[in-house]
Amino acid sequence: MLNAIDKELLRAVADLEGIPKGAFNIRKNGKLLGREVSANINIETNAEGTGIVIRIRPGTVSESVHIPVILSQAGLHDVVYNTFVVGDDSDVTIIAGCGIHCGSSESEGHSGIHEFRIGKNAKMRYVEKHVALGEGRGKRILNPTTKVVLEENAWAEMELSQLGGVDEAKRLNAAELGPGSTLMITERVMTDATQTAESRNELLLTGEGSKANIVSRSVVKGNSKQDFFVNLEARAKCYGHIECDAIIMDNGISETVPALKALHPDAELTHEASIGKIANDQLMKLMSLGLTYDEAVDRIIRGFLK
Amino acid sequence: MLNAIDKELLRAVADLEGIPKGAFNIRKNGKLLGREVSANINIETNAEGTGIVIRIRPGTVSESVHIPVILSQAGLHDVVYNTFVVGDDSDVTIIAGCGIHCGSSESEGHSGIHEFRIGKNAKMRYVEKHVALGEGRGKRILNPTTKVVLEENAWAEMELSQLGGVDEAKRLNAAELGPGSTLMITERVMTDATQTAESRNELLLTGEGSKANIVSRSVVKGNSKQDFFVNLEARAKCYGHIECDAIIMDNGISETVPALKALHPDAELTHEASIGKIANDQLMKLMSLGLTYDEAVDRIIRGFLK
Repeated sequence: MLNAIDKELLRAVADLEGIPKGAFNIRKNGKLLGREVSANINIETNAEGTGIVIRIRPGTVSESVHIPVILSQAGLHDVVYNTFVVGDDSDVTIIAGCGIHCGSSESEGHSGIHEFRIGKNAKMRYVEKHVALGEGRGKRILNPTTKVVLEENAWAEMELSQLGGVDEAKRLNAAELGPGSTLMITERVMTDATQTAESRNELLLTGEGSKANIVSRSVVKGNSKQDFFVNLEARAKCYGHIECDAIIMDNGISETVPALKALHPDAELTHEASIGKIANDQLMKLMSLGLTYDEAVDRIIRGFLK
Repeated sequence: MLNAIDKELLRAVADLEGIPKGAFNIRKNGKLLGREVSANINIETNAEGTGIVIRIRPGTVSESVHIPVILSQAGLHDVVYNTFVVGDDSDVTIIAGCGIHCGSSESEGHSGIHEFRIGKNAKMRYVEKHVALGEGRGKRILNPTTKVVLEENAWAEMELSQLGGVDEAKRLNAAELGPGSTLMITERVMTDATQTAESRNELLLTGEGSKANIVSRSVVKGNSKQDFFVNLEARAKCYGHIECDAIIMDNGISETVPALKALHPDAELTHEASIGKIANDQLMKLMSLGLTYDEAVDRIIRGFLK
C-alpha cells in the first residue's frame, strides 16, 4: 500500500514509520489512501466530497488523530476542506501536515483549508509540518488555511512549520477567541533559493479574559523572501502578544507587519520584533569552542527554529 | 502687536514670553506677523508666496530659529509650505509649532508642510508643539507634514508633541536617510473626548550605516482614538528601531501598525510595542506614598509623556 516515496514523506511530515496507531486519515494524490476511526474519534468524508469531517466526542482525553496528506503526482494541485469538531472537555492532539515529492519539471501543490470548532473547556494541540522533497525542478506549492473558533475556556496550541523545500507558500490563520479561551501559535519557516513564504494571521479576541500569543521564527536564506502579517484585534478585556524574529542570511528579504488594535479599554497588547543577521558574538563564542563557521551557523539556526 | 491670546498661544507653543531673540518668523491667522533674520540664518517668503524658505549657512553652530504659527480666526484653515535648507557642518535648533485658539463654534485648522534638507555632517534639532486652547466648540484641526532628507552623516532629532485640545490631527512624517545619517523621532500625543489623531511615518534607510529610531508615546483618554503607522524600509546596511507605547484610559481606542521591511541582508530592524492600561502595581506604589488615585494617574501620565 505504501511505496518508498510515501514512506519517506510520511516520516518527514508526521514522524510516522508506516500506518499510524489510533484514528487516522491518509490522503495521497487527492484520494483516500487509508482511514481508521476510534470509539471517540469519528472521521467521515464531508457531504460535498471535498474533504473530511473529524468529530471528537466530548470528554475524550489523551487521544490523537493523524491526518497526513502526501503528494507525488506531477501536475496535481490538490485542494481539501477539512472540518474539526472538538467536543467539550476533551484533550486531544491532531497531527496534520503535507509532504510533497516532486520528481519532474511540473509543479505540484496542496491547499488544505481546515476549520476548527474547539468546544467549551476543550484542549487541542495541532501540529502541522510542511515538507517538500525530490529532485524534480517543478514548483512545490503549499497554501494552508486554518480557521479556529474557540468556545468558552477552550485552549488551542498550534505548531506550524515549514522547514525546507517549499517554493511558494501562502498561509492564512484566522481565529476567534471566546471568553477565557487561549490560543498559542508558533510558526517556524525556513526558505532558501528563490522561495517565497507569506503568512497572514487574523486574530480576533472577542471574549473576556481571552489570551492569544503568536510567535514567528523565520530563517531567510539565499534570495528567498518571507512576509509575515498579523492583525491582532482586541474587542474585550484580553491579552495578546506577538513575537516575530527573523534571521536574514545571504540576500534574503523579510517584511513583518504586526497590527495591534486595542478596541477595548481593558485590552493589553504587546509586540516584539527583530530582523537581522546572526549576532557576531554568538558565532564567535561557538567558534571559540571548536566549531567551524558553518557548524556554528547551523547550530544557531537549529536552536532558533527549535 | 501681540494681544493676550497671541501671547498665551506663543507661550504654550514655543515657551516664548513675547518676541523671541535671534531669527524668527511668526505667522498669525495666515499672515506674517513678524520676521527677523540673522547673519547666518535667512528667512524669505517663497516664490509662490505660500510659505517661507529658511536657509542656514554652512558651519552655523549653536543658533536657533523660531517659527511659531498662531491661529485665532474663526473658520480659518491655514495651509503653509515651508522649506528648510540646513547647511553642511551646521548645528542648529528649529522651534516650530502651532497654537490654535478657538472662541466660536466654527472650526479652525492649520496644515504645515515642512520640507528639510539636512546637509553633510549637519545637526538639526526640531521641536514642534501643537496646542489648542479656548472655550469655543468649533473643531481644532492640525495636519502637519514633515519631509526630511538627510545627507551624508547628517543628524536630526525631532520632538513632536500634541498634548491636548486638538480635535483632529493627521500627521505624516517622511524621511530618507543618506549614508551614516541618523534620525531620531519622538512623538507624544494625548487625546481626550472624541478627538482623533493619526500618525503615518515613512522612513527609508537608503544610506549605508544610517540609523533611525522612532518612539511613540500615546495617552488615549475619553472616547478618543489614536492610530500610529510606521513603514521602516531598509535598503542598505543600517539599523532601525521602532518603539510604540500607548496608555489606554476610559474608552480610548488605539491601533498601531509598524511595518519592518528588511530589503537588505545587513539591515537590522527591531520593534517593541505595548498597549494597555496603567499597571496596577505602579498605581498602588504611588498611592502607598500618600497620593490619591487621580494624583497617581496624573503623575504616571506626566512621566510617560515627558
